[in-house]
Amino acid sequence: MPVNQAPVKPAHAVRALQKGQQTKQAIVDAALGLATQIGLEGLSIGVLAEVTRMSKSGVFAHFGSREELQISVIREYFNQFEQEVFAPSMREAKGLPRLKALFANWMKRIAVEIQSGCLFISGAVEFDDRSGPVHDALSSSVKTWLKALFRAVVQAKECGHLRADADEQQIAFEIHGLILALHFEARFLKNPGSIDRATQGFTHILRLFGADDGALAKPAQPTIKSPVPAARKNAARAKPVSPNSISNKD
Amino acid sequence: MPVNQAPVKPAHAVRALQKGQQTKQAIVDAALGLATQIGLEGLSIGVLAEVTRMSKSGVFAHFGSREELQISVIREYFNQFEQEVFAPSMREAKGLPRLKALFANWMKRIAVEIQSGCLFISGAVEFDDRSGPVHDALSSSVKTWLKALFRAVVQAKECGHLRADADEQQIAFEIHGLILALHFEARFLKNPGSIDRATQGFTHILRLFGADDGALAKPAQPTIKSPVPAARKNAARAKPVSPNSISNKD
Repeated sequence: MPVNQAPVKPAHAVRALQKGQQTKQAIVDAALGLATQIGLEGLSIGVLAEVTRMSKSGVFAHFGSREELQISVIREYFNQFEQEVFAPSMREAKGLPRLKALFANWMKRIAVEIQSGCLFISGAVEFDDRSGPVHDALSSSVKTWLKALFRAVVQAKECGHLRADADEQQIAFEIHGLILALHFEARFLKNPGSIDRATQGFTHILRLFGADDGALAKPAQPTIKSPVPAARKNAARAKPVSPNSISNKD
Repeated sequence: MPVNQAPVKPAHAVRALQKGQQTKQAIVDAALGLATQIGLEGLSIGVLAEVTRMSKSGVFAHFGSREELQISVIREYFNQFEQEVFAPSMREAKGLPRLKALFANWMKRIAVEIQSGCLFISGAVEFDDRSGPVHDALSSSVKTWLKALFRAVVQAKECGHLRADADEQQIAFEIHGLILALHFEARFLKNPGSIDRATQGFTHILRLFGADDGALAKPAQPTIKSPVPAARKNAARAKPVSPNSISNKD
């Protein structure tokens, strides 16, 4: 065998590996669906075995522990968030177009989550007084996402689309508040008009920090299609999952 | 006995009643402390019996059901909120001074809740996909409070402190977002500076909607002392507890 050539796995071993990955993914999908309803803390190997009609030992073989299962769910959620909200926004020009696309895609996702719940928001409530690897995975995912939003704001300022003295942290904080208010008021209080209010609030923030009315008037297009096409979703799964992948992009 | 004169209860019956009320209040206090840590859904007659070192039947005698216990906790939290945030703000002049006091008192309460958690926020996540009397008690409490905030905004506009075309619902929505972002970023992400950002965001909103810089520069004084003096707290408990009491005030 030539040097540096990886040994070829027999076809049956490859198939077994693929099947194992598919089963694991099916468990994670079921777990994510459950977690948005009953919370991350409601997940257990036993509950998942029941839902997926597998044996407990079968589920256990894929995750090894409840914590590992919870962390896999957080990573899956983060990947979906990245693919639906972040990645398509990156195709927009740096500055206001990209920032507006990020917000529009985020809003679109939240609009779906008014029905299903948002793991970043419910997870924060579940884990805000705890420590440990699940808390850390969740907090690191949220921070990575907020950092991506922050960077989009920084770029908008660098491009001259916002005032030179605009406080980027402040802008990101206020935008985050709009999303949280939207989720709270639409999902819990069933207040009609919450989506319009969040959209209007976003325009207010940008205007206050110097965006000109011409750029603001141009509607922000959500650049995602929902649901995510299977091919793209699988591509996201195939690559190494890291909560830092967003933050390494320009 | 003259007509219309209530029968006088014997002293021992009055003492027994008072003792019963004290015990019930002690259970509610313990339950509220627990609920901010483990959630409303974590409460049960059994857990409360353990924490208060009473028998299950003793706790049960005061509440009758888990739901009734949960609702009592929501009412107690609402009363505290009313006494700490709302009532003292009512001593400020209508308009911007009152709105600023409401926000300052709310912020002061949230600053404490960065440690202990906010039942309105954690409860919303717990009950946003449920129905029933506990959900309704919580949602009605939150709505009553947000309506009080909304009315303070309306009055500020009526007083000419905000522009005549200011959208009061929009302003209340954006203010709510700041509070939610503060709670999320300070409590879950431990981001320093979140209180300053929420305060600055509040100024931005008021300025955008026409408050003049002179009125904004005057610092908003939190009108509460923490903890609430026992006399006032007890007075609040003595009166009938209704989530609508805030909304009936001018």
